[in-house]
Amino acid sequence: MKKVILAPDSFKGTMSAEEICEIMSEEILKVFPDCEIHTVPVADGGEGTVDSFLRAVEGEKRTARVKGPYFEEIESFYGVINGGKTAIVEMAAAAGLPMVEGNKNPGLTTTFGVGELICHAIENGATEIILGMGGSATNDGGCGAAAALGVRFFDGQGNEFIPTGATLCKIAKIDISAAREKLKAISLRAMCDVENPLYGENGAAYIYAPQKGADEEMVKTLDDGLRHYGKLLENIPDAAGVSQMAGAGAAGGLGAGMYALLGAKLTSGIKTVLDTVGFDSRLTGCDIVFTGEGRIDGQSLKGKVVLGVCDRAVVKNVPVCAIVGDAQDEGLDAAYERGLTSVITINRMAIPFSQAKLRAKDDLRQTVKNVIRLIASQTSKK
Amino acid sequence: MKKVILAPDSFKGTMSAEEICEIMSEEILKVFPDCEIHTVPVADGGEGTVDSFLRAVEGEKRTARVKGPYFEEIESFYGVINGGKTAIVEMAAAAGLPMVEGNKNPGLTTTFGVGELICHAIENGATEIILGMGGSATNDGGCGAAAALGVRFFDGQGNEFIPTGATLCKIAKIDISAAREKLKAISLRAMCDVENPLYGENGAAYIYAPQKGADEEMVKTLDDGLRHYGKLLENIPDAAGVSQMAGAGAAGGLGAGMYALLGAKLTSGIKTVLDTVGFDSRLTGCDIVFTGEGRIDGQSLKGKVVLGVCDRAVVKNVPVCAIVGDAQDEGLDAAYERGLTSVITINRMAIPFSQAKLRAKDDLRQTVKNVIRLIASQTSKK
Repeated sequence: MKKVILAPDSFKGTMSAEEICEIMSEEILKVFPDCEIHTVPVADGGEGTVDSFLRAVEGEKRTARVKGPYFEEIESFYGVINGGKTAIVEMAAAAGLPMVEGNKNPGLTTTFGVGELICHAIENGATEIILGMGGSATNDGGCGAAAALGVRFFDGQGNEFIPTGATLCKIAKIDISAAREKLKAISLRAMCDVENPLYGENGAAYIYAPQKGADEEMVKTLDDGLRHYGKLLENIPDAAGVSQMAGAGAAGGLGAGMYALLGAKLTSGIKTVLDTVGFDSRLTGCDIVFTGEGRIDGQSLKGKVVLGVCDRAVVKNVPVCAIVGDAQDEGLDAAYERGLTSVITINRMAIPFSQAKLRAKDDLRQTVKNVIRLIASQTSKK
Repeated sequence: MKKVILAPDSFKGTMSAEEICEIMSEEILKVFPDCEIHTVPVADGGEGTVDSFLRAVEGEKRTARVKGPYFEEIESFYGVINGGKTAIVEMAAAAGLPMVEGNKNPGLTTTFGVGELICHAIENGATEIILGMGGSATNDGGCGAAAALGVRFFDGQGNEFIPTGATLCKIAKIDISAAREKLKAISLRAMCDVENPLYGENGAAYIYAPQKGADEEMVKTLDDGLRHYGKLLENIPDAAGVSQMAGAGAAGGLGAGMYALLGAKLTSGIKTVLDTVGFDSRLTGCDIVFTGEGRIDGQSLKGKVVLGVCDRAVVKNVPVCAIVGDAQDEGLDAAYERGLTSVITINRMAIPFSQAKLRAKDDLRQTVKNVIRLIASQTSKK
């Protein structure tokens, strides 16, 4: 092996993508000391997304003073790459759930600071914004972020205000003209791997608000607010159907707001990452891509890391080996057809997950070691 | 891959070596339809040893009327290969535990029929005997088998008799001269993978007699008998120390009897199998050997299948991949140093063994499939 790309997802609850890449790299270099290893730690859009991009691509981290989840002043950050032309913003840096620990209230929290981070990037020269939408404390439909970028919200009395989860129902009119003018030369992509619609039993409030601090009654109020807000969004040109769009309910409805109010594209996390790190050109001359997930099955494959990697690698005829925790082999045929070469599991002993997770790192190391030794044995003699 | 050898041990309690070979073959041929596959289903010396050899090497099965465990007349069998020059005898075919089901008594059972099978083979032209010593119902120290081959046992009154477990203590004198004369041009090898001495707390009676039907008191009597018998064996030329020799306690002391009375060599099962099937010459031009065991660890490696295979393969520079149920990776360094290339586990899910064993065949199939696909991806492009 002369060139290898590592592009694993995290193993939820046991190892981060960075840790996996580190273990894989170490074991590969023991057998192939001259191997060129490209590491693409796959970001999921949540906390750590900026750092993850900056490890894969040259760039810098910038700080900015913006509003926090309760409109308080905070120091936040975003990343820039491509000489400052592309900015990576993670919403968790200005409206993340850990920031409201002990004081959760999705009725009152705002994404305003997220919009401010985007503004800061644009004012400093960025023309492409990539927004990670994971780990939010909010349910404001992205109204805060939109307001920071110039969208205006009015109540029934014509008074302008910045809606939060609890006041979405008071919006009577929305004016996007100034914001659209400001963003007309800007490409906005929001990374989105959830498929929830804006409201309803699978919507942002019912599925995600409880973990953000909402009780049953508040969930109903928030859902009513999103429903009202959604109807207003549907009237915006090119936004018909936005409420039911997959991903509209991401990050407390930020997905819907980004799409309808600001004209953002919602794209899957893995596609966005692979585009941004120049994955396709890195594939040239690559012997194999190692990817992986904590669990692989027919279901989880929808839009996820392994298939995202396969779709690119198959075009350049590069094999893809997925190193996984659990494999549900039934249902993987579609993945093999889309270019997946091999699925190797890391379970070195037949023990339940409660025990296996405690030794996952060592199991991964032993598995990679033995896979690499096997490859070496079959390639070195040719 | 143009040529592959399959030499797995059984996965105890889940799959026989033959079943494993079949699954491996099927999955290899799906990816490499022209691959030349050599199958060496590894016999452990117990029930099925003859069939196992006859699957790996051309030969025939012969029947013979001999004495059963209680000196009753039975129809038994053995195998011959090399045009009848080599006979494969499994002791379980004339003194096996399943033959006394419902009537177990290691004090009374005999290996006489085992000796008769050997006689039959010799009288029909065999000059090399390979004896599988697994699955015995007896504790007679091999006196029965020896008697059938001409060894004479006398009690204190000078009366000749055929000792069994309960009457070993009555032996006063042993005359091996006629038997040694009969066997002088015969090579006798007894396959032996246990390390127990003849008597004592790790001896044949204490460790194995309970599963053959002995209660606590009988175990003590049997052990006393073996101790007395062992002292007599020690006086035979070239048999000093036989009682404490590893394997003396195999098959109710048959190991000691074969060695001391009949001049047999005790050799490990895997070495015997590999010699007999011409493993070394089959290695020529071989791309990889797939072996395996239900569990691999530093302990189990002593004299077992995987290392036996490695010791041969490393000489010819052929990689060895062990496909296993569980791998205890600590302690495997010695195995890698002896030529083991890679250990791949079949656990596709993190579940306890009680569940995993129910799906072991499918897990093995999926694992082999993915290993072969991985190898193909790395070799086809070169």
